[in-house]
Amino acid sequence: MSDFLSRLAAAVPAVTTDPDAMEAYRRDQCLLAEAGRPLAVVKAGSVEDVVAVVGLCRQYGVPLVTRGAGTGLAGGANALDGGVVLVMAGMDRILEIDEVARTARVEPGVINADLDRAAAAAGLWYVPDPGSREICSIGGNLATNAGGMCCAKYGTTQDHVLELTAVLGTGEVIRTGRATRKNVVGLDLTRLLVGSEGTLGVIVEATVRLRPRPQGLATVAATFPSVQAAIDLVLALGREGDAAAIELMDRTTVRAVNAMTRMGLDEEAGAVLLAQFDGADAAARAQRCAELAAAFGAEAFATDDPAEGSALMEARRAALPAIERLGATLLDDVCVGTHRLPALIAAVEEIAARHGVAIGTFGHAADGNLHPTIVYDPADPAAQRAARAAFDEVLGAALALGGTITGEHGVGSLKAPYVVRQVGATERELMVRIKAAFDPAGILNPGRGF
Amino acid sequence: MSDFLSRLAAAVPAVTTDPDAMEAYRRDQCLLAEAGRPLAVVKAGSVEDVVAVVGLCRQYGVPLVTRGAGTGLAGGANALDGGVVLVMAGMDRILEIDEVARTARVEPGVINADLDRAAAAAGLWYVPDPGSREICSIGGNLATNAGGMCCAKYGTTQDHVLELTAVLGTGEVIRTGRATRKNVVGLDLTRLLVGSEGTLGVIVEATVRLRPRPQGLATVAATFPSVQAAIDLVLALGREGDAAAIELMDRTTVRAVNAMTRMGLDEEAGAVLLAQFDGADAAARAQRCAELAAAFGAEAFATDDPAEGSALMEARRAALPAIERLGATLLDDVCVGTHRLPALIAAVEEIAARHGVAIGTFGHAADGNLHPTIVYDPADPAAQRAARAAFDEVLGAALALGGTITGEHGVGSLKAPYVVRQVGATERELMVRIKAAFDPAGILNPGRGF
Repeated sequence: MSDFLSRLAAAVPAVTTDPDAMEAYRRDQCLLAEAGRPLAVVKAGSVEDVVAVVGLCRQYGVPLVTRGAGTGLAGGANALDGGVVLVMAGMDRILEIDEVARTARVEPGVINADLDRAAAAAGLWYVPDPGSREICSIGGNLATNAGGMCCAKYGTTQDHVLELTAVLGTGEVIRTGRATRKNVVGLDLTRLLVGSEGTLGVIVEATVRLRPRPQGLATVAATFPSVQAAIDLVLALGREGDAAAIELMDRTTVRAVNAMTRMGLDEEAGAVLLAQFDGADAAARAQRCAELAAAFGAEAFATDDPAEGSALMEARRAALPAIERLGATLLDDVCVGTHRLPALIAAVEEIAARHGVAIGTFGHAADGNLHPTIVYDPADPAAQRAARAAFDEVLGAALALGGTITGEHGVGSLKAPYVVRQVGATERELMVRIKAAFDPAGILNPGRGF
Repeated sequence: MSDFLSRLAAAVPAVTTDPDAMEAYRRDQCLLAEAGRPLAVVKAGSVEDVVAVVGLCRQYGVPLVTRGAGTGLAGGANALDGGVVLVMAGMDRILEIDEVARTARVEPGVINADLDRAAAAAGLWYVPDPGSREICSIGGNLATNAGGMCCAKYGTTQDHVLELTAVLGTGEVIRTGRATRKNVVGLDLTRLLVGSEGTLGVIVEATVRLRPRPQGLATVAATFPSVQAAIDLVLALGREGDAAAIELMDRTTVRAVNAMTRMGLDEEAGAVLLAQFDGADAAARAQRCAELAAAFGAEAFATDDPAEGSALMEARRAALPAIERLGATLLDDVCVGTHRLPALIAAVEEIAARHGVAIGTFGHAADGNLHPTIVYDPADPAAQRAARAAFDEVLGAALALGGTITGEHGVGSLKAPYVVRQVGATERELMVRIKAAFDPAGILNPGRGF
């Protein structure tokens, strides 16, 4: 491999092989997944760098893991033994904001929230809003088809991408899509690349859609006697049109948030919902939502003051850090039809009770996308085994309800063994054949995604 | 081939080889595209029929064209010489409407409007609304990723599909997707199949999303002194949020509609726009739209009476039949960014003048998706050549403006020669390799789509 490394160092400027320096690039934020020991970490500065690295990896059969900001939650960007980690974080230029076309052209390392701030300066909005938006990059968002709170109304990352430039495993550079609202020419390579978790190509540029910023914003906080009553409201709202967000916290989560923030949420509540509405009729819809919530037995409060709304949503944003203070955690990411949320939550409660673990459940109720988060004592091997068993069973419960084992975090390496249970063996084989069309040598993030 | 035909007849019940009986299945509604002479027409009655036909075609290397209702506009379902036409129109059952999950499970032969009527009986809405919705089938809508009037707000067919069952060129049956709002497991096979024009598989079942029917509907008709003023309104509305539809007719179209319907539209107008708004604030938004239109020099009229709104939209629905009364027509389907519509329309007018042909332009202004329709005398070979040259140049004009050669009708066989000009040779080669993953023998609609 010394030949490979010397050619790599000659081809691209920023190559690191020092184990200590590489340590920071070995894993993303999923502690549960394995991380290998890479041969080298390369910081890409240009498309030419990416082409050179892919070419050499292909020639020498070296596995290549593409890494964005390292905020992944499924080990998809963890290093592979003897491989290269290609870090895209430095390619972070916003190349163009076109106010008239309402598009932005960006490099993959741009931080999600930075793009939205640049859009806001032009009165526009980059919609996809993963919880990590202050620290995650567009490239990683594209690789995982990241979601967020606003998906029920506005869709996920894939619904906001118009064009991509990517380097295939062959070293070829392709441009996909078209900056138009409709385009049915050929196969949809753009949607295929989005969510492919670095297995098909390295995305080096994206043109994304920007929307006008919504004109009104109103927020409802509602405390329900039971999870069922909260979901009854979610279903009733779903019959009336899209809320901008409907976020759920169960009792375990509420108590954890109170302990961390002293927000004084009702600890005897079965569930707390936070709903947001945008547009000219936001205040009226929030008022109607609060009335509906009261009819389902909730104590509800509506506000059209944006600052007050943000303060309320802080409780939801505090959910994961608050639960993480209770012990080691396994963060899950399952999604079912919204009408099946009560059954999913009941299954999670049953699993928690049977294994003697605490599970705090929160998430995007409007999408049916929840994050049951298992809390355990990392010093206790039996608790660790129980947590892992509970994690597996939550995935099984989602599948049994016609749901998915990951709604927005991705398969990565964490859930790769479960993929075939969801998609079937024939379908997985087809995905492997499609990958070969992009990456005949199989060097791009092998073993991840599917 | 007699061995093939006898095995085919033994394997599936409804096989026709009589040339007269096959004539009705040789072509779709695109008269410009070539249609071959098939060996046989097979009417599928079940998934097993489809598997049997695909298996035999694969074994004997016989090309297979899948056909829905035959309403295609790009020759994508035209027969190939020596091939089989597989007619899916008879698999037309609505298998399930799930009111709680708000989904429908259907066979591909279901007529679009029939599905919407079944949804409406449950208070729900199947959104995608191609102009041909009374006669086109869901299978064809999926194959072409069909659009319609409501796309600017609600997206195209692909945005309403959750799960597909398809028979690959290998004869394998796959199930793709998940009936959840989010799902990031594996490659997005669903979105890849949608719009693939019968080149990757035969879709035999689909689960689609249904939405609550919108509660209000209001319509604006506005007559502008110039196309530029009409587009100025489209851009201004785009900054305020999504209209349900904004339809444009140029002067040539307006005159043709008047001649057919005696609607009495202003024949001196530069353009007529018809805009619809839905939701609780529809009437207020329509009123605001009419005021904005007046500020751009239009005579505008708003109504929240649904019947009156439908009557206004009839003018737009009459556009194509009205133009077809003027002579033989070449219907085009180009899409650009909305801010580039004035440049596209100017280019179309220049092309019409230079070739001495009439072109009536109408379409979905909110999407930037227009249908410039060239009128010519089919008895005059010179006129025919001029029309064809103008058609080519309209595609070139769309590409030069960063647009697409087809926004919603598909490539079919009509535009296959133009694909590489839009997507590039490397990208087209990649599509060919992806097709091989689905259809290694290359029997599924060869030469179409890309």
